[in-house]
Amino acid sequence: MAEMASGEEGDFFALLADKQTLLTKEGKPYYRVTFRDAGRDCSFPIWGDAPLADACRDDWKVGDFYKLRALYRETNYGPQLDIRKIRPVEESDTADGFSPQMCQPASRFNPEEMFDDLIALAEEGIEEGPLQTLVVGLMTEHRDTLLSWPAAKRNHHAFAGGYLEHVRNVARHAYYLAQRYAELYPDMSPPLRVDVAVAGGILHDIGKLRELYATAMGADYTASGSLIGHILQGRDMVREAAAAQAIAGEPLDEETLLRLEHVIVSHQRLPEWGSPKPPMTPEALIVHFADDCDAKYQMMLTILDDDTAAGPLTGRRNVLGQAVYRGGE
Amino acid sequence: MAEMASGEEGDFFALLADKQTLLTKEGKPYYRVTFRDAGRDCSFPIWGDAPLADACRDDWKVGDFYKLRALYRETNYGPQLDIRKIRPVEESDTADGFSPQMCQPASRFNPEEMFDDLIALAEEGIEEGPLQTLVVGLMTEHRDTLLSWPAAKRNHHAFAGGYLEHVRNVARHAYYLAQRYAELYPDMSPPLRVDVAVAGGILHDIGKLRELYATAMGADYTASGSLIGHILQGRDMVREAAAAQAIAGEPLDEETLLRLEHVIVSHQRLPEWGSPKPPMTPEALIVHFADDCDAKYQMMLTILDDDTAAGPLTGRRNVLGQAVYRGGE
Amino acid sequence: MAEMASGEEGDFFALLADKQTLLTKEGKPYYRVTFRDAGRDCSFPIWGDAPLADACRDDWKVGDFYKLRALYRETNYGPQLDIRKIRPVEESDTADGFSPQMCQPASRFNPEEMFDDLIALAEEGIEEGPLQTLVVGLMTEHRDTLLSWPAAKRNHHAFAGGYLEHVRNVARHAYYLAQRYAELYPDMSPPLRVDVAVAGGILHDIGKLRELYATAMGADYTASGSLIGHILQGRDMVREAAAAQAIAGEPLDEETLLRLEHVIVSHQRLPEWGSPKPPMTPEALIVHFADDCDAKYQMMLTILDDDTAAGPLTGRRNVLGQAVYRGGE
Amino acid sequence: MAEMASGEEGDFFALLADKQTLLTKEGKPYYRVTFRDAGRDCSFPIWGDAPLADACRDDWKVGDFYKLRALYRETNYGPQLDIRKIRPVEESDTADGFSPQMCQPASRFNPEEMFDDLIALAEEGIEEGPLQTLVVGLMTEHRDTLLSWPAAKRNHHAFAGGYLEHVRNVARHAYYLAQRYAELYPDMSPPLRVDVAVAGGILHDIGKLRELYATAMGADYTASGSLIGHILQGRDMVREAAAAQAIAGEPLDEETLLRLEHVIVSHQRLPEWGSPKPPMTPEALIVHFADDCDAKYQMMLTILDDDTAAGPLTGRRNVLGQAVYRGGE
Amino acid sequence: MAEMASGEEGDFFALLADKQTLLTKEGKPYYRVTFRDAGRDCSFPIWGDAPLADACRDDWKVGDFYKLRALYRETNYGPQLDIRKIRPVEESDTADGFSPQMCQPASRFNPEEMFDDLIALAEEGIEEGPLQTLVVGLMTEHRDTLLSWPAAKRNHHAFAGGYLEHVRNVARHAYYLAQRYAELYPDMSPPLRVDVAVAGGILHDIGKLRELYATAMGADYTASGSLIGHILQGRDMVREAAAAQAIAGEPLDEETLLRLEHVIVSHQRLPEWGSPKPPMTPEALIVHFADDCDAKYQMMLTILDDDTAAGPLTGRRNVLGQAVYRGGE
Amino acid sequence: MAEMASGEEGDFFALLADKQTLLTKEGKPYYRVTFRDAGRDCSFPIWGDAPLADACRDDWKVGDFYKLRALYRETNYGPQLDIRKIRPVEESDTADGFSPQMCQPASRFNPEEMFDDLIALAEEGIEEGPLQTLVVGLMTEHRDTLLSWPAAKRNHHAFAGGYLEHVRNVARHAYYLAQRYAELYPDMSPPLRVDVAVAGGILHDIGKLRELYATAMGADYTASGSLIGHILQGRDMVREAAAAQAIAGEPLDEETLLRLEHVIVSHQRLPEWGSPKPPMTPEALIVHFADDCDAKYQMMLTILDDDTAAGPLTGRRNVLGQAVYRGGE
Repeated sequence: MAEMASGEEGDFFALLADKQTLLTKEGKPYYRVTFRDAGRDCSFPIWGDAPLADACRDDWKVGDFYKLRALYRETNYGPQLDIRKIRPVEESDTADGFSPQMCQPASRFNPEEMFDDLIALAEEGIEEGPLQTLVVGLMTEHRDTLLSWPAAKRNHHAFAGGYLEHVRNVARHAYYLAQRYAELYPDMSPPLRVDVAVAGGILHDIGKLRELYATAMGADYTASGSLIGHILQGRDMVREAAAAQAIAGEPLDEETLLRLEHVIVSHQRLPEWGSPKPPMTPEALIVHFADDCDAKYQMMLTILDDDTAAGPLTGRRNVLGQAVYRGGE
Repeated sequence: MAEMASGEEGDFFALLADKQTLLTKEGKPYYRVTFRDAGRDCSFPIWGDAPLADACRDDWKVGDFYKLRALYRETNYGPQLDIRKIRPVEESDTADGFSPQMCQPASRFNPEEMFDDLIALAEEGIEEGPLQTLVVGLMTEHRDTLLSWPAAKRNHHAFAGGYLEHVRNVARHAYYLAQRYAELYPDMSPPLRVDVAVAGGILHDIGKLRELYATAMGADYTASGSLIGHILQGRDMVREAAAAQAIAGEPLDEETLLRLEHVIVSHQRLPEWGSPKPPMTPEALIVHFADDCDAKYQMMLTILDDDTAAGPLTGRRNVLGQAVYRGGE
Repeated sequence: MAEMASGEEGDFFALLADKQTLLTKEGKPYYRVTFRDAGRDCSFPIWGDAPLADACRDDWKVGDFYKLRALYRETNYGPQLDIRKIRPVEESDTADGFSPQMCQPASRFNPEEMFDDLIALAEEGIEEGPLQTLVVGLMTEHRDTLLSWPAAKRNHHAFAGGYLEHVRNVARHAYYLAQRYAELYPDMSPPLRVDVAVAGGILHDIGKLRELYATAMGADYTASGSLIGHILQGRDMVREAAAAQAIAGEPLDEETLLRLEHVIVSHQRLPEWGSPKPPMTPEALIVHFADDCDAKYQMMLTILDDDTAAGPLTGRRNVLGQAVYRGGE
Repeated sequence: MAEMASGEEGDFFALLADKQTLLTKEGKPYYRVTFRDAGRDCSFPIWGDAPLADACRDDWKVGDFYKLRALYRETNYGPQLDIRKIRPVEESDTADGFSPQMCQPASRFNPEEMFDDLIALAEEGIEEGPLQTLVVGLMTEHRDTLLSWPAAKRNHHAFAGGYLEHVRNVARHAYYLAQRYAELYPDMSPPLRVDVAVAGGILHDIGKLRELYATAMGADYTASGSLIGHILQGRDMVREAAAAQAIAGEPLDEETLLRLEHVIVSHQRLPEWGSPKPPMTPEALIVHFADDCDAKYQMMLTILDDDTAAGPLTGRRNVLGQAVYRGGE
Repeated sequence: MAEMASGEEGDFFALLADKQTLLTKEGKPYYRVTFRDAGRDCSFPIWGDAPLADACRDDWKVGDFYKLRALYRETNYGPQLDIRKIRPVEESDTADGFSPQMCQPASRFNPEEMFDDLIALAEEGIEEGPLQTLVVGLMTEHRDTLLSWPAAKRNHHAFAGGYLEHVRNVARHAYYLAQRYAELYPDMSPPLRVDVAVAGGILHDIGKLRELYATAMGADYTASGSLIGHILQGRDMVREAAAAQAIAGEPLDEETLLRLEHVIVSHQRLPEWGSPKPPMTPEALIVHFADDCDAKYQMMLTILDDDTAAGPLTGRRNVLGQAVYRGGE
Repeated sequence: MAEMASGEEGDFFALLADKQTLLTKEGKPYYRVTFRDAGRDCSFPIWGDAPLADACRDDWKVGDFYKLRALYRETNYGPQLDIRKIRPVEESDTADGFSPQMCQPASRFNPEEMFDDLIALAEEGIEEGPLQTLVVGLMTEHRDTLLSWPAAKRNHHAFAGGYLEHVRNVARHAYYLAQRYAELYPDMSPPLRVDVAVAGGILHDIGKLRELYATAMGADYTASGSLIGHILQGRDMVREAAAAQAIAGEPLDEETLLRLEHVIVSHQRLPEWGSPKPPMTPEALIVHFADDCDAKYQMMLTILDDDTAAGPLTGRRNVLGQAVYRGGE
């Protein structure tokens, strides 16, 4: 669907992302449906007297995938579809190239490569031993989930693979900054722990695996995510992994664990942003800046991409709450 | 010492709570020492040419207990001692009635009775089962420590037994409020969990056992207390106890555990006061108010007790940052 | 109307709470009317070509009560009525059981009983004398109004009898807390004034009688309520009553009056919540917490009642600006 | 004293504004005394072995006035006195020109003239009738007190006559602004009430008569001033005067009274500055700006006068919390 | 158009201020157009089957002026036009009295007179010399633009001539206040610079000439206005003028220039309102208050003018975010 | 002096950084002097009867350099000197190795190398053309000053060469981040301007050359620095350089200049930190994070270096207002 030009007709797969039953002014029911694929959302009405109205009401299910033949049109009300044929996806469609991923917005980067890059970074930035084991172990244990995880329900990196994209940027920034400061100020006492900065960069958001749950329609908060939050839940995961590792005979020393927990706990810096403690170690400071910089940069990227206002500046109704400059006078 | 009148001489036990080495304007060293018992602090100089000066410099150790014979005087510089005789406490002094507790400020209430009252409350307010087991178990496990624990390093209930005094008030308030609301609004859906409010009242500050460590001179923050904080550490203790209890065959159901964790996490309500989440359940709301009310009430009590300003109002340099009215016009 | 099932037809009384004249897209006028009884609001259109359109336009008056025969239906647009017959309420309807109260949302508690409970509390918690006289006198003077008063225009207890429901909770909480602290810390100097806490609990919101005015459609702000506010107006009422009582020969001593005024002035604690002074007496502190706790508890109760979002948590668009946990994972 | 040059000896009258008993390092008592006249404070020690030590300890009383013969010296520790002779002021000194006012800092303007100017303004800016009566009446009733009243305990205009000086500026500014806006926008609906702006300017701080009490040593807060505050107390005074005037047969209409009360209540604009309501009328807005402008201007004046830092800018430790530019580069 | 009564038909000139293409529920396009003259905006639909629909779609251009013959009606949807005839304005219409200004909301005051008044003020309040030259020069250079400039894109004085109206008020207020303080406190050191206060009052918003650009439809932000802001841009204009004047042989002394720059930089007082520095000179303080007072007064004026809520108070959804009192109880 | 052990006597050069005249309790004058070299400050008294007292009073001048022979001792009052011989530095001392720099704290990095590194970065990160010319030109023009400039009066990098040390870190971080984002998101529209990020990193603090002035005793604010601030002054320098360059025939295009100005204006991000605009371009965002990260990192470094509190955490009275973790439990 994302590649179709206005006025073009074609066959494609799409997710039914939303269906609402509404009433016309005359009191007759009609439906507003949203079909989605990786690059586009189409929301439009199915009138009550349309040929598809009964199927829509009785059979179409939010969260299911469909094969459609439809005419795609761009209108003042946004992109619309005139559906010619529609049926649920069948097993055999996989052979035709269907996969659920093609119906969800996704990171531009290959998830496997991002994952491997993070493992490589853990092996380069953390010397062999309990900390490297813990980081690589946690990542590997959750590999399958991480490959498709978004970084948030909304705001930034809210798409499949967004978690890895954001975390890789943060961890790479943190590694660069930590290395540079370690070189510049070698006599800082105690010395900067580059390995803790790297481990913290990789694991700072790991609690999002418990805070969110993923559906075909996107991520949402779990009950414990709402009541406790990913900062505390991520620390839980690290503590549980460290406890298991201690039993398994490769204990992490207490101070390293405490420094790593603190990076997670403080990475949003201010209490009103969710961190009960401010960064109190150089490693926590570095990971905080790496995280904040990447989150804000991605927001700006998205705003420049999405905003449709004319003129040299975008509008102000966006996640940053301010205009962004595009260029020109 | 606390019972002596100005000008009186007597024998008593005291803690050497502080010793500083200073210089006179002429460059000669002297010492400023602080002796403490349950009711009083005496800070005064030992001049370099005083008979006790050498002993003070070489032998007296901060944190040790001493038996003194001294003249007590109240001066413009506060209470002072003219020491006639002094020696470290000996084993045999215990027979004479010495105990370290007599040299520390302490709650006006008997710690054992407060502890028992909390256990009784747990048994009355929480029906028999995993939650009662968890609360009574955690309290019993830490009984010895709790008996002497302060509620804070400073601000409120910062004395031996202060933890139990504060927690008992909070838990009793929470029980009263929860019972009253459960009666008034029996059809709230889901119903108010009186047992969770009571358990939360009793355990809301349990993390202070990890956040602080106690010395003869008072409480101070542990490294993990500074970097992580008692709100998160208290939740850890509850989760660890619940995990052990699950292994032991008396598992707490997930929702009850989540509600209890949330009470602890949110009991300070605002992020800038240390709570990463606001109260999102009725139980958490009740425990927050019970806690805040008792903390502030105790501050007011202490201000009225300590403030020495003349007139109908106290000064404003106190823990509340405001004047308190004493009475009169 | 509140007891009717969808699809049921019946006779009932209702208030015409709102009527708006609107235009269809074709430019023809139609009406949107809201009928209300104690348990329900029904808002629906009367089309311009409907048999009732002329009567609606010319005769129906907002704030009047009507007897209706109608079919009740629950639709996607909320509850609707197909009116078969309608006429204004007549005198004789009273014999049939009509009363204006049946057409307004109301407290679940009997107003007379709540009023009597507050008087009983004043007689129990305040010893006989000028303060008791003042409290009982003010309540009795305004008895008729208080029986139906809401606690606010919106936010919490915004229904008939809501004033008494909220005030009774606050006064009872304040009495409990004051008694408990008086027992626990009998040597506080000056001693806690339980009577002032009770009087303050009962009268803290008395200024709402001047801040608001009641109509059949609910409460709204008076001009003086908007420009001055209930905190100052409540203090006025207490001062005026005290002045009258002094003339009548039962003067309240100055300090007691000042303490009571201060409870009213400071009961919202923060200037941005409307209190020009923070609580500077123990009584004011207690009433503040009792008030804040009951207001927030009632908000949570209402949110749990009203919210229609699916899942374990309510939405965040409510008076607390946050989600509330319902249960489940 | 204020006119003496360093090294000069002379006779003068002064107030003993403070006396503290202190101990030397050797434990011997000495005294630190402060003598004050209209232009200067002198604080210096009286050593325990000085000829005047006994008289100082036993006879000199804070708040009494003395006649001194002394040598005045300016030192690194500020101005000092070598007292040759000292005795309490006697009745006959009045004949020699003594008055208590000469020993207190005072406004540069003549209090009677300022008072008369305010009355003239009331008569010019408010047409004859109940409002003029009320304003002139309140001023006249408190004339004697107003002549010497300060505008505050500290911060701005904290000297005798400071109240009138500040109020005259505010009222004159308000009159100018109100007249100008009334001319510029004659069709505002409802029209600007120039009379209310003038009355509000004159009476906005009248509650300071109840909030403060004056002593020889300066103003301090009354208990009711601390617990209630001058904003509410000033409104009380206006309401009481209006009630008395109604009884006396010259009632103020309700709206005018409400507008005047609102000017007082809102004149500090923000709740954190003490105003429970923001300015909601044009008159209140004008008085707020007139008041804020004069208070801040006077602070700047005082800072430029008092600051002793070298260079083009004053220090930042002052009532504005910022540097003020003096000139130069 | 602004003078027509409902139901009246007439000929008039108007600006097409907006045109949107929309879809009916049936999917047919229609247009929503806005015609504007100095006193009124009319927004209404042109249905797709209306005789004018094609002309509207193809020919009517936003920003162009038209001559209309139309029937004016006031409806529930606001003022509407039934257009009988319409054509673009022609050259010859100027002879008939057409000018673009008649189609834009404008200040009630004559721009030339306001401009002249400001020049007169500069000549009266600033003595002849470089500062007067700079102020008069800058004003004269931009005379043509200033005559029609609004004071803002929205919020206050957002209409043609609004810039001059606001600036004249501010400069007149500043001159009054400065004169008064100079008289009252002649010995302030350094003395108040009345000339700088007047110059600052006149030039404080001069940067709006670069921050905004004007179109027939109103003002909007330039790119540099968004990225830099009028406070900095106004200081640029003053510095550039001073540099040119120095080359031209009439240099402004450094301190005067610095004081003037500082007035501009600090005139909004708080960083969150856009001022990087608070007022640190008496002149800056005065201009800040003059500016803030006039901006807020104009907002209140507009709210009283525009608000349509019934009752003694306006609504709260306005630029001040609060209700304004109209009168009555 | 910085290399001497306690008890050691030696010859060295030092700056007289401060001299205060004080009075003993007996009223006799004495002096408190501070001698400084690159690694240490020594503050100690010269008693009035000491052999050097007269020379100290009459001859020693703050800001002059001296050659001393003295005994160095570390005491409870900090490091002290027993001066044996002292004379002002003479011309011939330069031959002996004296230079003013040896008496001032300085960056650990060689200023020339840091300067060259920045020029190299400008040549690598900005392609040849007007922007590179502007950056290299401004740096080169101020080379001599920059070599010794501090980054601030206090807070971070407040020592000779501190400006270059901080700016190099910021510019290097900005270059790294910009390069990385340009590679990751090559299709951002408009593309990230790596050259503007580098130029902004190098020039973001250039206004400190006008905001501060340097003396032997450290940096202080100029009048214009106080009244205008380095953010605006730095933009002035860039604009003036661009204007000169335009005249010289190598004009910078308008958009590039605007982007660069905006980086400077917004680099502190929040208005309360001094930035009138938030970062509205990707380049400004990157420079802001690079700057904030380096400033905070340096503060942490200094705190770890300076703090003398015992235990695993530093005290909280430092530039960050919080404890920093050193290690240990």
